[in-house]
Amino acid sequence: MSRTSRAVRRELPAAPDGVPAAPDGAPAAPGGVPAVLARARALVLPEIRRRVEGLSPEVRRVAAYHLGFVDAVGRPVPGGSGKAVRPALVVLSAEAAGADAGVALPGAVAVELVHNFSLLHDDVMDGDDERRHRPTAWALFGVGPAIIAGDALLALAMQGLLDAPDGPRRRAASDLLGATLGMIAGQGEDLAFAERLDVSVEDCVTMSAHKTGALLACAASIGAVLAGAPGEIVEALSSFGMHLGLAFQAIDDVLGIWGRAAVTGKPAASDLREHKKSLPVAFALSTPGPARDRLAKLMSNGHVEGDALASAARLVERSGARERCLAVAERELALALRSIDGPWIEAAARAELEELARFVTAREF
Amino acid sequence: MSRTSRAVRRELPAAPDGVPAAPDGAPAAPGGVPAVLARARALVLPEIRRRVEGLSPEVRRVAAYHLGFVDAVGRPVPGGSGKAVRPALVVLSAEAAGADAGVALPGAVAVELVHNFSLLHDDVMDGDDERRHRPTAWALFGVGPAIIAGDALLALAMQGLLDAPDGPRRRAASDLLGATLGMIAGQGEDLAFAERLDVSVEDCVTMSAHKTGALLACAASIGAVLAGAPGEIVEALSSFGMHLGLAFQAIDDVLGIWGRAAVTGKPAASDLREHKKSLPVAFALSTPGPARDRLAKLMSNGHVEGDALASAARLVERSGARERCLAVAERELALALRSIDGPWIEAAARAELEELARFVTAREF
Repeated sequence: MSRTSRAVRRELPAAPDGVPAAPDGAPAAPGGVPAVLARARALVLPEIRRRVEGLSPEVRRVAAYHLGFVDAVGRPVPGGSGKAVRPALVVLSAEAAGADAGVALPGAVAVELVHNFSLLHDDVMDGDDERRHRPTAWALFGVGPAIIAGDALLALAMQGLLDAPDGPRRRAASDLLGATLGMIAGQGEDLAFAERLDVSVEDCVTMSAHKTGALLACAASIGAVLAGAPGEIVEALSSFGMHLGLAFQAIDDVLGIWGRAAVTGKPAASDLREHKKSLPVAFALSTPGPARDRLAKLMSNGHVEGDALASAARLVERSGARERCLAVAERELALALRSIDGPWIEAAARAELEELARFVTAREF
Repeated sequence: MSRTSRAVRRELPAAPDGVPAAPDGAPAAPGGVPAVLARARALVLPEIRRRVEGLSPEVRRVAAYHLGFVDAVGRPVPGGSGKAVRPALVVLSAEAAGADAGVALPGAVAVELVHNFSLLHDDVMDGDDERRHRPTAWALFGVGPAIIAGDALLALAMQGLLDAPDGPRRRAASDLLGATLGMIAGQGEDLAFAERLDVSVEDCVTMSAHKTGALLACAASIGAVLAGAPGEIVEALSSFGMHLGLAFQAIDDVLGIWGRAAVTGKPAASDLREHKKSLPVAFALSTPGPARDRLAKLMSNGHVEGDALASAARLVERSGARERCLAVAERELALALRSIDGPWIEAAARAELEELARFVTAREF
């Protein structure tokens, strides 16, 4: 297996280097890193460290390495990996419902653990050997330990929601399992689509809704669930997260073909090379004509490399797929913001949700 | 990776061919297949099929194949794989607390799904390409689809326990997650021990308690939890399951070195070949003397094959490890039966628990 990882890019967002964190409590200036990210990290990291400490030593060292708590030989490292976008959504979803961030803690921890479970397994499935500028867990410790560590994080996630006998936590656990199953379905579709040429735009959006939307929808609503918020608030926040996920994925898919070319100077087009049926490819393949047929032919021959790869990227570009993807992202971002545009969402939380949404969908091209 | 799977053998029990199932409701004759197995299968299989039907198509075909619901090309197959020992324990644990088998259903389904999650992942980790006389899921569909299908079964298992808002189910879900984490710890230890020579008998028993005992303890008590039984009944049943797991694993470890030799005529000794630190090996390595030193030397050189393998098996045998393992199995079986020897366990269920315990620990040598 040597498929390029969707998972790496699913690790949203790539924060611009050198942007200082905003002072605590104040939203960052437009374009900066939202303050809620630091707040969410401060809340969840100690608890995640504590939970991971409770794992058996063999599993713990792999999980702790993956999470950035220790280096390759087990020496402690300050901080932890990941930007905590999902925990930030959980915190804001509790605050959106008028509750304290503390109410969101078990949900924020659980969502972040589920996310990391999926990263550990995706790296194995996709054969990716680097993440966050370090060797991936399987590359360092082997496939078995990486699978087991992922399994452990999924189980830990659920356990944290169930160790207190109150109704909202059970509901939260149930929601998170639904999201996990959605994510699993999406990864299954992603793997299967690589073998097919008849992936429609609708298929592709469904896959993104599963693979990326489900967990973001859960992250954006689970805090409100834990706060015991009314159904319409939970629904609105969930809808916000789903649309945000679709917006993010559309941009991510554009980067998967054209992004790295701009940054690295080489025609990466890794999604094309690996036959990924991302949104631009689905757009191009569903636009009838000779260009579509040439693309389909190029993409039905083993790995696409060299001149064929450059041709395929040009054919996708000429179909107008790039602009259509960016339009999808814009529309989905608007739908996300419209979902939370009501008096039942706390105004301060709404402002931070909007800031976060713009941050994770504003990617460098 | 080409480690011999502990998981295959963990799939207890190997039912003698040609033994007819006992009529419904009546315990089988001594030495036959316990009637509770057919009863448990009839209870859980339709529900497991229904749950698996709800998975996305790509994940479903792999899960359904692994579970024996369809063949390699997706054609339906009657029945389903596995003997349903764990669901049988769950059913009996509800009945032991005076409740109906129906109360146990969500627990029986969840425990069986967790068991199959672990089999799917263990086959990948151990590189085993055959299970139940069919190619394993990863061998047929690839590593990625097999990991994803395992993930899906774990999530489905928990979801089933959480889709109704009652307290006992939350407690059951929490117990099952604890058992899952135990099982994960055990698999981690098993992988790590292959690299070590200083595995003590105590380390090995701890590993078995995790790898095999934790899920059997949960299976044997989760029905009582769902029935809302008092703590002492739950504790007694959990203790029964843990001791049963240790008894089973001790016998399984004996089979891992000497069992197949008797059945197949070749000196399989697969645990030795793969450097597994099973109980007999731990016994032999902890018995000081020149034999121990020769064994340690043999087992520190890459794969053990040919003459070296035969020598290693002889050294383990001469240390008296085989008899010590069988004594452990006997003692643990007695402790299991003593755990449920009280007036608070329903007599009929106790008789069936005992029959089942004797069945799964009576292995052909």
